[in-house]
Amino acid sequence: MAVVKLLGAWLSPYCCRVIWALKLKAIPYEYIEEDLSVKSPLLLQCNPVYKRVPVLIHDGKPISESTVILRYIEEIWPQNPLLPSDPYEKAVALFWIKFADDKSPSISKLYRTDGEEQQQAAKECSEMLEIIEEHGLIEGKKFLGGDEINMVDIAFCSVAHWLGVIEEFAGLKILEPHKFPKLSSWIQNFKSVPVIKENLPDSDKMVALLKRRREMLLASKSN
Amino acid sequence: MAVVKLLGAWLSPYCCRVIWALKLKAIPYEYIEEDLSVKSPLLLQCNPVYKRVPVLIHDGKPISESTVILRYIEEIWPQNPLLPSDPYEKAVALFWIKFADDKSPSISKLYRTDGEEQQQAAKECSEMLEIIEEHGLIEGKKFLGGDEINMVDIAFCSVAHWLGVIEEFAGLKILEPHKFPKLSSWIQNFKSVPVIKENLPDSDKMVALLKRRREMLLASKSN
Repeated sequence: MAVVKLLGAWLSPYCCRVIWALKLKAIPYEYIEEDLSVKSPLLLQCNPVYKRVPVLIHDGKPISESTVILRYIEEIWPQNPLLPSDPYEKAVALFWIKFADDKSPSISKLYRTDGEEQQQAAKECSEMLEIIEEHGLIEGKKFLGGDEINMVDIAFCSVAHWLGVIEEFAGLKILEPHKFPKLSSWIQNFKSVPVIKENLPDSDKMVALLKRRREMLLASKSN
Repeated sequence: MAVVKLLGAWLSPYCCRVIWALKLKAIPYEYIEEDLSVKSPLLLQCNPVYKRVPVLIHDGKPISESTVILRYIEEIWPQNPLLPSDPYEKAVALFWIKFADDKSPSISKLYRTDGEEQQQAAKECSEMLEIIEEHGLIEGKKFLGGDEINMVDIAFCSVAHWLGVIEEFAGLKILEPHKFPKLSSWIQNFKSVPVIKENLPDSDKMVALLKRRREMLLASKSN
C-alpha cells in the first residue's frame, strides 16, 4: 500500500487545506508536525526551494505548495471529487483558487504589522472580501464551489477562520456580517461540514501563539 | 465549430504565454488587441475581478488568468501536450509554474521603480534566477520541462525575454551568463523554438513603450 505522509504545522491554513482534502477523500496518512523554528532535515530535503510546510510525501516523493498538493490529491484519489469535471467550471474554480492564493496573504499581514502597514493590510483584506461577496458567491448555493464543499471553499479557509481569530485579538473588525451577508453565511456553512469542524485549529491556542509571534516580529522590526 | 477569441496586449508576457500555447497546439483563434488605457466593455465584462488581459473566450465563455487559461487549453485540446501525463511529474511542473507566477513580477518591478526600490527588485530577481539555476533545470535537458518545450518553459517567458530587454534600457545586468550558465543556455533553446521566435514581441518596440511607461510612472510617483 502506498505510504502518505504530511509534514505540517497545526496553525497553518495551508496545511489545513491539505488535511481537509485528505480527510474528505478518506485517505489514511501519517501526520508529522514540524517545529518551524528548527526545520527538520526531512523538510529541508523535501522542499529546498521554499523550506516550508505543507509537504506531502507520497511513496517517498515530495510535493510542495498547498494548491499543487490539492491538485495532486485530486488526480491520484478521484473519489469525492473536489473539482468540477466540466472543463469550464473547473477553470472558474481554478481562477478562484488562484485568487485565494494571491489575495489571502493580506490576512496574515494583519497580525504581523501595526500602524499604517496594518491599515494597508486591512484595506487589502476588505477589498478581497468585497470581490468574493460580489463575484465569488453564487446565489442560493451553500458553498463557493456550488452545492457541495469543494477545493474553492478549502482554498478560502483563512477567510473562514483565521481572519476572525486575528480580528479578535488585534481589535479589528473587517468582516462585518451586515456588509458581507453572503460571505458570512458561507462561513457558517463551511464550518458546519463535519470534516472541517473536527479539524479546525483551536481559536484560543491560535490567539496565544499568534500573540507571541506578533510580539517577536514587532520587537525585531523596532530593533 | 467552436469560436476562440483572445483579448490581449502585445507587450504582456502573460498574453504571450497564451498565444504560444494556442500556436503550439495549432488552435485557430481571433486575436483582439486591447488598449489598456481605455479598457473595452468586453474586457470589463469578461474579467470584472481583475479587469486585465489575457482573457480567452471559448464558445462565448470567458476565462482569465494566464495559467488558468493554459490549464484550460491543455484540457480542451490535448494534442501536443504541454504538461507531463504522469501525476507526479505534472505536480513538479505545476510547482514551477506557480513559482514563475509568484516570483516573476520582480522583473516588471525593475522598470517601474528606481533607487532603493529598484535595488530591492534586482535582489529579488537575482534570488529567483539562483533558484531556477540550482533547482529548476535538469542536467542534460534542453528545456525546463524536459526534452521538449512545455508549460513550465512558457511560464518563465519573462525570464527568457522581458528581463533582457528591461536590463538593457535600465542599464542593469542581473542575468550574467557566467553566473547562470544553465539558465542562459535554456534561454537560447527556448528562443530557438519556431513558434516562440516567430511570436516574440520586438525588443526595440518594447524598449520604446517601456521607457514611456516608466517615465509616466515615476513622474506620477514624484507628484
